[in-house]
Amino acid sequence: MKLSISDSVKKIPYYPKALMYGHEDGWVRLSSNENPYPPSEMVFESILDALFGINRYPGGEKELKDDLAGLYRLKGDNFLIGNGSNELIEMTFRAMKHDARNGVIVTESSFAFYDIAARIYGYETTKVPLEGLRTDLGKIAAAIDDRTRIVFLNNPLNPTGTIYHQEEFERFIGSLPPEVLVVVDEAYAEFAESESFPATLAFLEKYPVLVLRTFSKAYGLAGLRVGYGIGDTELVSFLERTKQPFSINLIAILAARAAVKDQPRLAAVLANNRSAKSFYYESLKALALEYVPTEANFVLVRLGPRADEITKKLFDRKVLVRFMGAYGLPNSIRISFGTAYENTRCIEELKRLL
Amino acid sequence: MKLSISDSVKKIPYYPKALMYGHEDGWVRLSSNENPYPPSEMVFESILDALFGINRYPGGEKELKDDLAGLYRLKGDNFLIGNGSNELIEMTFRAMKHDARNGVIVTESSFAFYDIAARIYGYETTKVPLEGLRTDLGKIAAAIDDRTRIVFLNNPLNPTGTIYHQEEFERFIGSLPPEVLVVVDEAYAEFAESESFPATLAFLEKYPVLVLRTFSKAYGLAGLRVGYGIGDTELVSFLERTKQPFSINLIAILAARAAVKDQPRLAAVLANNRSAKSFYYESLKALALEYVPTEANFVLVRLGPRADEITKKLFDRKVLVRFMGAYGLPNSIRISFGTAYENTRCIEELKRLL
Repeated sequence: MKLSISDSVKKIPYYPKALMYGHEDGWVRLSSNENPYPPSEMVFESILDALFGINRYPGGEKELKDDLAGLYRLKGDNFLIGNGSNELIEMTFRAMKHDARNGVIVTESSFAFYDIAARIYGYETTKVPLEGLRTDLGKIAAAIDDRTRIVFLNNPLNPTGTIYHQEEFERFIGSLPPEVLVVVDEAYAEFAESESFPATLAFLEKYPVLVLRTFSKAYGLAGLRVGYGIGDTELVSFLERTKQPFSINLIAILAARAAVKDQPRLAAVLANNRSAKSFYYESLKALALEYVPTEANFVLVRLGPRADEITKKLFDRKVLVRFMGAYGLPNSIRISFGTAYENTRCIEELKRLL
Repeated sequence: MKLSISDSVKKIPYYPKALMYGHEDGWVRLSSNENPYPPSEMVFESILDALFGINRYPGGEKELKDDLAGLYRLKGDNFLIGNGSNELIEMTFRAMKHDARNGVIVTESSFAFYDIAARIYGYETTKVPLEGLRTDLGKIAAAIDDRTRIVFLNNPLNPTGTIYHQEEFERFIGSLPPEVLVVVDEAYAEFAESESFPATLAFLEKYPVLVLRTFSKAYGLAGLRVGYGIGDTELVSFLERTKQPFSINLIAILAARAAVKDQPRLAAVLANNRSAKSFYYESLKALALEYVPTEANFVLVRLGPRADEITKKLFDRKVLVRFMGAYGLPNSIRISFGTAYENTRCIEELKRLL
């Protein structure tokens, strides 16, 4: 092919999209930090109501923003809706790009899409190592230079489940040059139980911060792809200029609106998550396996040099967990919290293999 | 705000997302070239089957590609699935970008998103005027220079409904420098009746052509946002590197798969479209209104200097059509073909206002 494809795109490795395992009956799918429960009746009803309108282009984004504004006691204009958090991440890359020297900072062992998107948009990525499996905001502040446009934080951090605390964030955000955008991906925030988990929304007016939240985790709508950003209204208005019209489908918008209204369902999901966490802590202790205390809906478990092999053997038994080699943690696996039945199956199979 | 937003993004005008009209009962919505019929029972069933899986990340993209390969007698690897055609358009901008001098060519009076996306990705847009309300491929070929990376064609052309023909395309594609990507947006192709409508797919192997098709028009799934690209497997593999993981939601993928299988439904939609076309041709002639013969599911009607005013008065009567001022055709409106009832309402209201 003589087409002149961009060099930065050519350097992105190509993985043909794989068939996905574990959607069929009989699989225990604990590999993608999904909510193990199907959504509530309110969500189902909203989808059924939408069916006869799917031949029309989707409306309702403004109404979803207003619902979220009610939930967070902010304005609708503080919200940005995305086709999953990925679209929101791309909007920040588009809006902050000036020239080929632009840089972005992420932590090592974090969500792979930050780095993929950085390459697509021609940014240079600086990866800052974790400190004791935690994000080290001091090291990140020290890595910022005059090329830095965006810092991506993830709190709680996937795949460790660890958090940085309120006072650490306060010190960090006060020390930054004002032209750097700090994107705080709080996809797992609803699960956090620590009292010192940062109240990031309190910083939006004074600092250039965009908080990312999602309907894919605690709200259980991963299959529908709805994320949202929360920021200062001026920042939001600039980011929204880079957004595709109609990027979020009608069913997703209506299901998200129903999910926001069904807060009792969210409370039930969080209670289930706490039970699952206690179950794993006890079971892993009983198996003498080291794990990282978690503020999310998954737990990082140290299996040693057999981690990859055990992941494959679990797969053969139809239990899916995630080997952490790609995150630079080749001795560990990440287990997402499932239903009580799924969690028991996982621990039983693990016990058999140790 | 001290944030340093990119200059090209700052120049994009900001329109806060408007509330959408016409989703409620009583409105006749002929403004967005939508399919007026809700999807088939097969599509509804596929959505109901999906409901209990929406807490999981979506699979099924590969299977949808294979279904499309069956329909077109091509390979699954010839297909690229997008969150609406917009995501596919963005993939081409990402993959072809080299430096600030890159250019893109579009026709005047075409889909606004080509130009918006060009600005977001920092391309310079050259707009080539229509000739007698038709795309002039000769003028487009003449506009190509060494900065040109992408040419966007739209056939049938929105908003005129006109086409360029097989032999024109053959001459054009043979004359291009091989490093220029030609993106042919055929969103309305299923509606085309002309025997000289180009068989663009026959050119994929020999020339750098990407054909865009969509489930939003003839297949009636505008609310779900699924478009697809068809191209040489090497081109597709490069474009796919720039794609978000999980950009298309589960319900959309499953509904699209069902729609591909329900070809009798597509045939019924196309028969309805032909009836609507005859109805408008006759009714517009009876009203002594000039129109452009169309190969799509809409018709461009010349109302003269009152076009804007009449559009607003139709709106007051809950009939939505599209004023063409933004397309550089301030004497015209575009009417999408609706149900027989909607078409009759539209013509009656129009008659009252003339």
